[in-house]
Amino acid sequence: MTATAQRSPVCVLGLGLIGGSLLRAATAAGYRAFGYNRGLDGAQAARADGFDVSTDLTATLARAAEVDSLIVIAVPMPALAHLLDRIAHTAPGCALTDVISVKGAVRDAVTAAGLDANFVGGHPMTGTAHSGWAAGDQRLFVGAPWVLTVDDHVDAGNWMTVMRLALDCGAVVVPAKADEHDAAAAAISHLPHLVAEAVAESAADVPLAFALAAGSFRDSTRVAATAPDLVRAMCEANADELLKALDRTIELLERARTTLVEQGSVAELVEAGHASRVRYDNFPRPEVVTVTVGEPGWRAQLAAAGRAGSVIRSALPGPGTPR
Amino acid sequence: MTATAQRSPVCVLGLGLIGGSLLRAATAAGYRAFGYNRGLDGAQAARADGFDVSTDLTATLARAAEVDSLIVIAVPMPALAHLLDRIAHTAPGCALTDVISVKGAVRDAVTAAGLDANFVGGHPMTGTAHSGWAAGDQRLFVGAPWVLTVDDHVDAGNWMTVMRLALDCGAVVVPAKADEHDAAAAAISHLPHLVAEAVAESAADVPLAFALAAGSFRDSTRVAATAPDLVRAMCEANADELLKALDRTIELLERARTTLVEQGSVAELVEAGHASRVRYDNFPRPEVVTVTVGEPGWRAQLAAAGRAGSVIRSALPGPGTPR
Repeated sequence: MTATAQRSPVCVLGLGLIGGSLLRAATAAGYRAFGYNRGLDGAQAARADGFDVSTDLTATLARAAEVDSLIVIAVPMPALAHLLDRIAHTAPGCALTDVISVKGAVRDAVTAAGLDANFVGGHPMTGTAHSGWAAGDQRLFVGAPWVLTVDDHVDAGNWMTVMRLALDCGAVVVPAKADEHDAAAAAISHLPHLVAEAVAESAADVPLAFALAAGSFRDSTRVAATAPDLVRAMCEANADELLKALDRTIELLERARTTLVEQGSVAELVEAGHASRVRYDNFPRPEVVTVTVGEPGWRAQLAAAGRAGSVIRSALPGPGTPR
Repeated sequence: MTATAQRSPVCVLGLGLIGGSLLRAATAAGYRAFGYNRGLDGAQAARADGFDVSTDLTATLARAAEVDSLIVIAVPMPALAHLLDRIAHTAPGCALTDVISVKGAVRDAVTAAGLDANFVGGHPMTGTAHSGWAAGDQRLFVGAPWVLTVDDHVDAGNWMTVMRLALDCGAVVVPAKADEHDAAAAAISHLPHLVAEAVAESAADVPLAFALAAGSFRDSTRVAATAPDLVRAMCEANADELLKALDRTIELLERARTTLVEQGSVAELVEAGHASRVRYDNFPRPEVVTVTVGEPGWRAQLAAAGRAGSVIRSALPGPGTPR
């Protein structure tokens, strides 16, 4: 297994749904993987499942520095700044990525901690309505898009390292600029969460509504079952982009209201929405194959490919791979 | 099979997703079931699958009258008035129900055609994003709530007949007043459809959005894949109630926008929405067991039970059953 032998060790900080799934997936893929969890219960559960987990952050970071581990930040946004300070103190040379659902705010915090030269922003676009170590699943990333940022600060060698981890976990990699990611995430994740809350709440006081609720309501409000703290964290950290998406949606609903009152018709919205959904269902997913990581213009080329829907399904060539 | 022998024959008018599924389910449950479809393709496909189907409406209605069939109207709302005229002419004595997704407007049309004494409004709360005979499924109704109206015009004997059909198809029966049904359906079906269209359309012009879309977007916009004509028909036929639901939702989203701008928080909406969804997930489904159809006050008792979430899982006693 020469391929595995070349992999960096992986240190996962935070063992909730995503971090816990990643520790499992990386271990299963043959990585030397270890983790830290602040809460004792989660750490004990992970250890009981056979994983190498500590509740001592300093010791974990010292170990990461010693074995030159890739560090994966998998804590919620509010805990980020503190964690970055600790990393800058104890493991300032380690390659660094994260799995937080906004990318601009994380990049800014990483830059403020002086760690941007080590950092590749990451966002696996997967999850469930459940949280915590017990909710984790080694196969959570299989087939999921996993965004990796290609902003100007990103180092080619680090990018290769994180790309390999994502691919080894079964994900497909979508390269993106952090700000473009955040605009898209607002439209396809944060807005749908807020809207689901509004639909659930709108029905709550209507007699008979829950008694009749079936597939449309169940699917439309599924993500409203997500823990409120997680929804708030991702929505509030991406407020600027979420506001734009929210305004577009409110405007579309207001216009549908007007046509329904004035013409008895919702044709405009229904036809446009249907066409968009059909376009999404048929959205092409070509594979990125022509880019070499680290060559001149590689970041811009990958950003353009991601924007066009392209994904990386097997490792691109780059630093450390044979020419 | 003495139980089956007591069943009325069933005549299904319109063999789209719901009507086609019903013809299959009733046949499988042992009913003598036959159908009419205006389109030749659907009728031929149904015949090829072994069902007793005609494209001759007059002949089908004459046969229904002859064998004293229960007639099930399974055409879209815009075709209703014409069909009722034909029924009033050729089969004015047959018990009558429908499977259209609004109940007040259907009741009004039935009353206008002079058929309200024969009529029990019905709405199986099930479906898929597909349509037409080929999309039908004999098991579509299994476990689904199937609303039957208990307005003042409803006859106890007819209600028993339609209740038995719904139960024999595997549904659970939810008794409701037509107007209460429409308010609830707006909240849990028509509004979610419009909102799904708006979410799909909001994302359509954001670069990278479809490339990143995963579970939240897919589930939130699933019903936007429904044929636009069907969405329009149900939304536009229930405009008054839909407007109320739409206004509640727009107001909730506007308020979340305000708190996000002023306090950087969406806590209010997220916590309320989550609590509502959790309440929905734990909504009790007690069984109606104490009502005898046709006894004094039976309609009001059933309406109250349905409002409280109760469902009918096995046939209630009533006209034609042993005391």
